[in-house]
Amino acid sequence: MLDDFDKFDALFHPGSAAIVGASSNIMSGGYNFTRFLIDHGFKGRIYPVNPKLDEILGLKAYANLRDIPESEVDYVISCVSAERVLQLLEDCKAKNVKLVHLFTGILSETGRKKETRLEREILRKAKSLGIRILGPNCMGVYYPKVGLSFNHDLPKEAGPVGGFFQSGGGAGEFVRYAALRGVRFSKVISYGNALDITGSELLYYFADDPETKVIAAYVEGVKDGREFICALSYAAVRKPVIILKAGRGEAGKKLVFSHTASMAGSMEIWRAISKQHGVTLVGNFQELIDQVVAFTFLPPITRRGVLIVGGGGGKSVISGDVWEEEGFHIPELSLKTRKELKKEVPEIWDWVRNPLDSSIFQKSLVPPLSLLKMVAAAQEFDVLVLGLTQDDFYPTDIWRETIVRDFLGGTMAIKDGSKPAVSVIETGEIDFSDMQNWRWSAIAETRKQVISQGIPVFPSPVSAAKALRKFVDYWVWRERR
Amino acid sequence: MLDDFDKFDALFHPGSAAIVGASSNIMSGGYNFTRFLIDHGFKGRIYPVNPKLDEILGLKAYANLRDIPESEVDYVISCVSAERVLQLLEDCKAKNVKLVHLFTGILSETGRKKETRLEREILRKAKSLGIRILGPNCMGVYYPKVGLSFNHDLPKEAGPVGGFFQSGGGAGEFVRYAALRGVRFSKVISYGNALDITGSELLYYFADDPETKVIAAYVEGVKDGREFICALSYAAVRKPVIILKAGRGEAGKKLVFSHTASMAGSMEIWRAISKQHGVTLVGNFQELIDQVVAFTFLPPITRRGVLIVGGGGGKSVISGDVWEEEGFHIPELSLKTRKELKKEVPEIWDWVRNPLDSSIFQKSLVPPLSLLKMVAAAQEFDVLVLGLTQDDFYPTDIWRETIVRDFLGGTMAIKDGSKPAVSVIETGEIDFSDMQNWRWSAIAETRKQVISQGIPVFPSPVSAAKALRKFVDYWVWRERR
Repeated sequence: MLDDFDKFDALFHPGSAAIVGASSNIMSGGYNFTRFLIDHGFKGRIYPVNPKLDEILGLKAYANLRDIPESEVDYVISCVSAERVLQLLEDCKAKNVKLVHLFTGILSETGRKKETRLEREILRKAKSLGIRILGPNCMGVYYPKVGLSFNHDLPKEAGPVGGFFQSGGGAGEFVRYAALRGVRFSKVISYGNALDITGSELLYYFADDPETKVIAAYVEGVKDGREFICALSYAAVRKPVIILKAGRGEAGKKLVFSHTASMAGSMEIWRAISKQHGVTLVGNFQELIDQVVAFTFLPPITRRGVLIVGGGGGKSVISGDVWEEEGFHIPELSLKTRKELKKEVPEIWDWVRNPLDSSIFQKSLVPPLSLLKMVAAAQEFDVLVLGLTQDDFYPTDIWRETIVRDFLGGTMAIKDGSKPAVSVIETGEIDFSDMQNWRWSAIAETRKQVISQGIPVFPSPVSAAKALRKFVDYWVWRERR
Repeated sequence: MLDDFDKFDALFHPGSAAIVGASSNIMSGGYNFTRFLIDHGFKGRIYPVNPKLDEILGLKAYANLRDIPESEVDYVISCVSAERVLQLLEDCKAKNVKLVHLFTGILSETGRKKETRLEREILRKAKSLGIRILGPNCMGVYYPKVGLSFNHDLPKEAGPVGGFFQSGGGAGEFVRYAALRGVRFSKVISYGNALDITGSELLYYFADDPETKVIAAYVEGVKDGREFICALSYAAVRKPVIILKAGRGEAGKKLVFSHTASMAGSMEIWRAISKQHGVTLVGNFQELIDQVVAFTFLPPITRRGVLIVGGGGGKSVISGDVWEEEGFHIPELSLKTRKELKKEVPEIWDWVRNPLDSSIFQKSLVPPLSLLKMVAAAQEFDVLVLGLTQDDFYPTDIWRETIVRDFLGGTMAIKDGSKPAVSVIETGEIDFSDMQNWRWSAIAETRKQVISQGIPVFPSPVSAAKALRKFVDYWVWRERR
């Protein structure tokens, strides 16, 4: 419910961008931001600004923003030091700049009076000049569709996840790791000290943004509590909102001030508000990614009966324990299902249970496909969980041929059914030589293929069960409204 | 406190082993167990037994155990079906066999009367013949020192971790994954239905075993509750005992019966007994590995002041939150430390905090080594946590050169200090093409180097903090006794 969605949205569709403080020093923001735009194929014109250089990364450099031979420059990335920002804003006005992204930091987050005063002065000037400020002390915008990026080698394809992060580093790492899980992004915005553009404004924006289906956020603190609650309430009825709230402990509360000059606030209040407004809270970056994977890959689910398949006895028992501990139930096979099983596998129909211990099915890690399809279709289950485990004793060639083939076959069989499915594939701590080992490369290939089938992959039963718990909580909340 | 440690220990030092039901079918136990012994360099003589074959995997095959041209065969791996075991025991007696490992299953774990009666009959006969039984329905022994193995490609080097697992599949996977974290094993024993050799006996054995410094177990149920409690009490004062108790939920309780015919028992009782006797309980295989890593790599720690280093603001805040949520405290830098910092880094001495937000240190992901050493040596910290994160914005070459070098440098600097240190290196979900990407290969190489320095590596702040919490709990418990 931004007053003017289109006007705000236009800030992120610049026809031209200048990097003020662009540099050839490979360790600097000025170098890296220039390269991000080039490497990610920014669709507008790129103007490095540096009075000491003629050229940066093959682009002509300008001594001052005012020297750029266009009458307007839409978007400025500021890599200059804090004391030069006020003058920069004057230059921006001359070029009719709409948005200044202040990578520039060392302001109020230092906790020092002088820097805090300067930050307030920057806000005042920007407002008076009609320029919007993103940051300061932030990494800015990753918007693959238009070629804006805040890091190297992020996916160039777009996807449904939008994000706003007070930690620019956290945002970059999040995109990188989530991308390996098959997640793609509409846009992710790092907003640092939230001097002008706040979390509230971004939350409203993503709530209305048609490119965004799932909202993920890393929030240290909010200065406009009531506004933020309104924004949460507005957003969460429209799409899932997942928040990693940082600064929960004593040290964290102090550190968020040193980081983005934020006041962490009380976790009791955060929990109560989140519960009331259907917001999904997570506790760390891994959980944030797991939660985004769940919301991105799965259709709404409001029931908690799980069928667990794959893995021998030990792995199955522990999976069952973990899913139950996260509030799911593991229904017994119904009489109807057992009767059908009796026809197909008379030697084990009475022995097998949910979780399906695949060692009971003897000759295959995943039960024969027809069997799997039959059980998976049974009424008593709402969600199917397939695990690719290593708890068999087969050698290289069998593993690569049989196990992987069966697992992919099982995945496909389930995909064709009517139930949502998730997959658990554990991740090894591997290096080049491990990767050349048959087992690991087979696992890695399988993971990619499962993801490409649109089935979410989690790195452990616990991570899957925790993410699904909150996922179902959200859809139950939506259903009740 | 085994009545006769040496006699029991001798069971696992066979001079010869026969695989009865050896096979050339690559999917069979008979094939794979033969190959495990060959590939892991079993130090004794290997005798495949199969009446239909002359040779298996290059070894002469015998029609019957009795045909083996040695008067004694110490160790028999049974891969025949259950109804042939009684006759096998007679044959074993003729060859003076000490231990029969029954890979053979489909006995009491089926829940069927006939199979359960047969299992009881097997026990009776073995006892009357003076033969010990491992299993049935188990994978047997991995003992790298003597070349016994229950899976392919497990480490050939020995180490300090001993284990007993009711899940043979779980045991194999555990060894494989833990090995990637630098863990090595004295011996790991899969004991399935625990018909003769029980968890209690194995626990006493590992408690007395000089090759074992840390005990890890996967337990579904115990039939001799009082004996097991005595064994726990005996073992945990001697060395850390970590138990993954399986069958905690309703489905799990039923499944452990289908798996090893175990009665899961009440988790309230398990928790109370574990607390009283200083046993570390974990909830899944990942936690089991994390816990073993902590106990294997770290000296005893009884205090909970943590210094967290590495990562920018966001990652640092969340690490701090997570460690505090696991009961650690994150002491502020003392006045003394700040005074020293003021000399070295006057521009940030007042700004920086614990966790050390490395983005405040500007030009390096890990603070300069001299600085790190100085802070790490401060009295207010008991444990140092170094994180290798990806939340910077540097390109390929810088990352490989600078970041990795600084991280390894930091690790070395800390290793030379007087404080225990742990490292957090997150694991990506990667395939071959990702691995060829600079960042991932650099991470993987770094992980291996850090481990080789004797510093434990965890895959996330949460896994590190959870493992360390229980680790410190144990040493505090030991100290109080």
